[in-house]
Amino acid sequence: MSKTSPGNCFEDFRIGQVIRHATPRTVTTGDVALYNGLFGSRFAVQSSDEFARAIGYPRAPVDDLLVFHIIFGKTVPDVSLNAVANLGYAGCYFRKPVFPGDTLSALSEVIGLKENSSRKTGIVYVRTTGYKQDGSAVLEYVRWVMVRKRDEAAPAPGYHVPRLPTVLDPKVLGEACPPIDVVDYDTAASGAVHRFDDYAVGERIDHVDGMTVEEAEHQIATRLYQNTARVHFNQYVEGKGRFGRRLIYGGHVISLARALSFNGLANAFHVAAINGGRHVAPLFAGRTVFAWSQVLAKSELPGRTDVGALRLRTVATGDRPCDDFPLKAGDDYDPAVLLDLDYWVLMPR
Amino acid sequence: MSKTSPGNCFEDFRIGQVIRHATPRTVTTGDVALYNGLFGSRFAVQSSDEFARAIGYPRAPVDDLLVFHIIFGKTVPDVSLNAVANLGYAGCYFRKPVFPGDTLSALSEVIGLKENSSRKTGIVYVRTTGYKQDGSAVLEYVRWVMVRKRDEAAPAPGYHVPRLPTVLDPKVLGEACPPIDVVDYDTAASGAVHRFDDYAVGERIDHVDGMTVEEAEHQIATRLYQNTARVHFNQYVEGKGRFGRRLIYGGHVISLARALSFNGLANAFHVAAINGGRHVAPLFAGRTVFAWSQVLAKSELPGRTDVGALRLRTVATGDRPCDDFPLKAGDDYDPAVLLDLDYWVLMPR
Amino acid sequence: MSKTSPGNCFEDFRIGQVIRHATPRTVTTGDVALYNGLFGSRFAVQSSDEFARAIGYPRAPVDDLLVFHIIFGKTVPDVSLNAVANLGYAGCYFRKPVFPGDTLSALSEVIGLKENSSRKTGIVYVRTTGYKQDGSAVLEYVRWVMVRKRDEAAPAPGYHVPRLPTVLDPKVLGEACPPIDVVDYDTAASGAVHRFDDYAVGERIDHVDGMTVEEAEHQIATRLYQNTARVHFNQYVEGKGRFGRRLIYGGHVISLARALSFNGLANAFHVAAINGGRHVAPLFAGRTVFAWSQVLAKSELPGRTDVGALRLRTVATGDRPCDDFPLKAGDDYDPAVLLDLDYWVLMPR
Repeated sequence: MSKTSPGNCFEDFRIGQVIRHATPRTVTTGDVALYNGLFGSRFAVQSSDEFARAIGYPRAPVDDLLVFHIIFGKTVPDVSLNAVANLGYAGCYFRKPVFPGDTLSALSEVIGLKENSSRKTGIVYVRTTGYKQDGSAVLEYVRWVMVRKRDEAAPAPGYHVPRLPTVLDPKVLGEACPPIDVVDYDTAASGAVHRFDDYAVGERIDHVDGMTVEEAEHQIATRLYQNTARVHFNQYVEGKGRFGRRLIYGGHVISLARALSFNGLANAFHVAAINGGRHVAPLFAGRTVFAWSQVLAKSELPGRTDVGALRLRTVATGDRPCDDFPLKAGDDYDPAVLLDLDYWVLMPR
Repeated sequence: MSKTSPGNCFEDFRIGQVIRHATPRTVTTGDVALYNGLFGSRFAVQSSDEFARAIGYPRAPVDDLLVFHIIFGKTVPDVSLNAVANLGYAGCYFRKPVFPGDTLSALSEVIGLKENSSRKTGIVYVRTTGYKQDGSAVLEYVRWVMVRKRDEAAPAPGYHVPRLPTVLDPKVLGEACPPIDVVDYDTAASGAVHRFDDYAVGERIDHVDGMTVEEAEHQIATRLYQNTARVHFNQYVEGKGRFGRRLIYGGHVISLARALSFNGLANAFHVAAINGGRHVAPLFAGRTVFAWSQVLAKSELPGRTDVGALRLRTVATGDRPCDDFPLKAGDDYDPAVLLDLDYWVLMPR
Repeated sequence: MSKTSPGNCFEDFRIGQVIRHATPRTVTTGDVALYNGLFGSRFAVQSSDEFARAIGYPRAPVDDLLVFHIIFGKTVPDVSLNAVANLGYAGCYFRKPVFPGDTLSALSEVIGLKENSSRKTGIVYVRTTGYKQDGSAVLEYVRWVMVRKRDEAAPAPGYHVPRLPTVLDPKVLGEACPPIDVVDYDTAASGAVHRFDDYAVGERIDHVDGMTVEEAEHQIATRLYQNTARVHFNQYVEGKGRFGRRLIYGGHVISLARALSFNGLANAFHVAAINGGRHVAPLFAGRTVFAWSQVLAKSELPGRTDVGALRLRTVATGDRPCDDFPLKAGDDYDPAVLLDLDYWVLMPR
């Protein structure tokens, strides 16, 4: 019996299959510090226990994206070790704040399968839920990946393409956000005066700054999440591959873009949901990441007057400032674009 | 209304203006661990809760320079985002020890303004105070920077050049140091037997070791302090600039020199004050930092017999061992010198 | 009196000499997070407070190798600052689990001395013990190093070659492992179903994955342990030396190999002892580390039915996948081999 895990191939999955992922992980202030050192995030709610308490949290919550990366990392050995491509996310929303000391674990259900016409690969859809120690869900999302078959001749293990939401319903956006005391939300401390009502649909914001990525940085980040995807760490193999270099985990670009977005969105204190995202091009070490955002929509939250939701498109680029909001070049993306992310953030009103 | 902060230009400042800086920050043992990993500091008081308790602290305090860097970082977006040069520090002293769990915030008062004759820039003097959650001051310093004008034709916003101390008075040096039980100060554990009385004015110490700096290291450190100064992170822009490289935060050199100084000053357990400092030359990744120190003066602390203060000059160099104490070459600094720092440390008697 | 420590030369040691090492160190969840970010370890017991509690620990213990590195680091200034070569380890075993909040310190006894025939160097054998704040031992090991003499003409300071165990007796292997509740040991959460009984003596496991090492990573790790050995940090000096590069701390390879070994040994939750190890070749930044293991022996633990011990040989290589288990090339090691480690791990039964 082989002791090492070869990961699952397309024909190993079944519709309805439930996978409990290793390894449970207690999140600590140490993880938070390292995440801060890697991305330089400055959102006041996650940075200060005092600020967080003043507005209604019991203490500073863990950055939403750090929670996402940790849950995502757990699914890699079971879902995407043999992936050819990460195709998309949908229906990602945060259901409960996570605090240092909480222990996170993850479970996925296979909700769709579709063999490709080549019969060499197939698409696997999983709904992953992250839990904390008391069994409550902290995060939920659907992800689909193209996975290799072990044996081209193997019959397809099933066929179902799930219907997925293109945008999260505002009614779920407040789940991980306690009632906020907006009077005590101190905009001098948070770094900007602009609240929910100050943003207009269609408004575009250049986040100005750029951040150059080093190999050590993305490796440390991705290991912190216990994400074992081989392309991020193995120069010996990747050096002989298509790009000749290690590929940086796509979530690294998301975290960089989020940290850069502080300049212009300082009061967007909570990522409530990710509607979808596209990793348009891979990022490599040595490149400098820039970002800009557009307000796609605004929404009140049912029954709440404390916070409102902005639906944002945030675009990250490599070695390309964003003062002219680069996005498309004809029908294709501008070649500098790395990430096109569609998500909801909460802001105090 | 623009959502991104352009920073303040010279004509935006006013004498007496008070600026509350974002983002408050809860310091944790995670920050301490990362700081240790980046600099390798070995001073026993900051390293061991047991050692600290034995001599009179409630637990290990946070490294003084980490506190300085965090407070300094907060001022960057408001004070020096448009700075042409950091000109100096004065009157920096620590007023209260900081412990993991404390939340730090910062406030600056503009105490001086002086337009340069070119009318393109001016010098801004600010007195910055760092606070903890109970409102008590932990750190205070004056800094002056040369800041760009937005409009050369704009009138100077005021004129005043403050008188600044060249050296801190010994009477303030003990503020952040509790009464120390010198009998229980264990010199086997602290790494050296030499106490206050063993040092002589004029004595010079080569700290022997050298530490090479990597891009990932200074970026992680500077982001940990939430310092957003652009020159440290953006190779795309800096690659086209004067040096063709990212500039390393000057405070990185200070922390490296302090960590190296353990070899020769192991019982200098507390940086009580910084009289002034000059960043003589910029540091770039790939260079190896060395350091040496000279005892400029010694002072008792009024009313205290437990600790004494050494006034030190610590000089850091790049790619240049310090066995011959390099400093000047004619009227100028030796070209290898990076930092010339004048500060007070406390030692047990 | 010189204030800097020149380290001990061969003639400074005496048989029976006891050295208390600086600097005591409180281990925190911050250290754990940084260690995780650097190595990406995934063993469930060290990762999750909940998992650890379910099987009988009060909370997640600190990774055994992190404890080893911290204790080892403390001995460097006194034992090996003037070392020409690290020759070996023996009799290393863990005596008590370490938890965040514990303060570690180290003490060494000189148990052997042997001058080399050149009279330029000698071999020093020390037995080092790591302690926590209550005085209890957490770790013990013997190490021998070749140390320079200050003066070739100096008489040898003694002669004794201690007898050392080649393999630890199973009766000491359980000391740092509380009674384990094997029913509640959840193999879905731990990442593999294979327990003690599933492994056979002679079985070989390729750990598959490779990890490329960056300069920033090994420097951060080695500083985290407060290990000051100069060859790891000083490119200015090492650039002129035999290899033209910084040498990576040998313990870095051990930690990488241990983290890689999760893939195949996921339930080997505790390194109980290190029988011996050989750093066959130095590792440099930019190389990719791979590893494979062989089960050398299996042993029950006297009086315990909860866990059993596997004696493993783990071999790490540089830029060389391990699917064919590289070890020897004729009488010599395969040139790709970096590490040949012989140790005991515990597994649930």
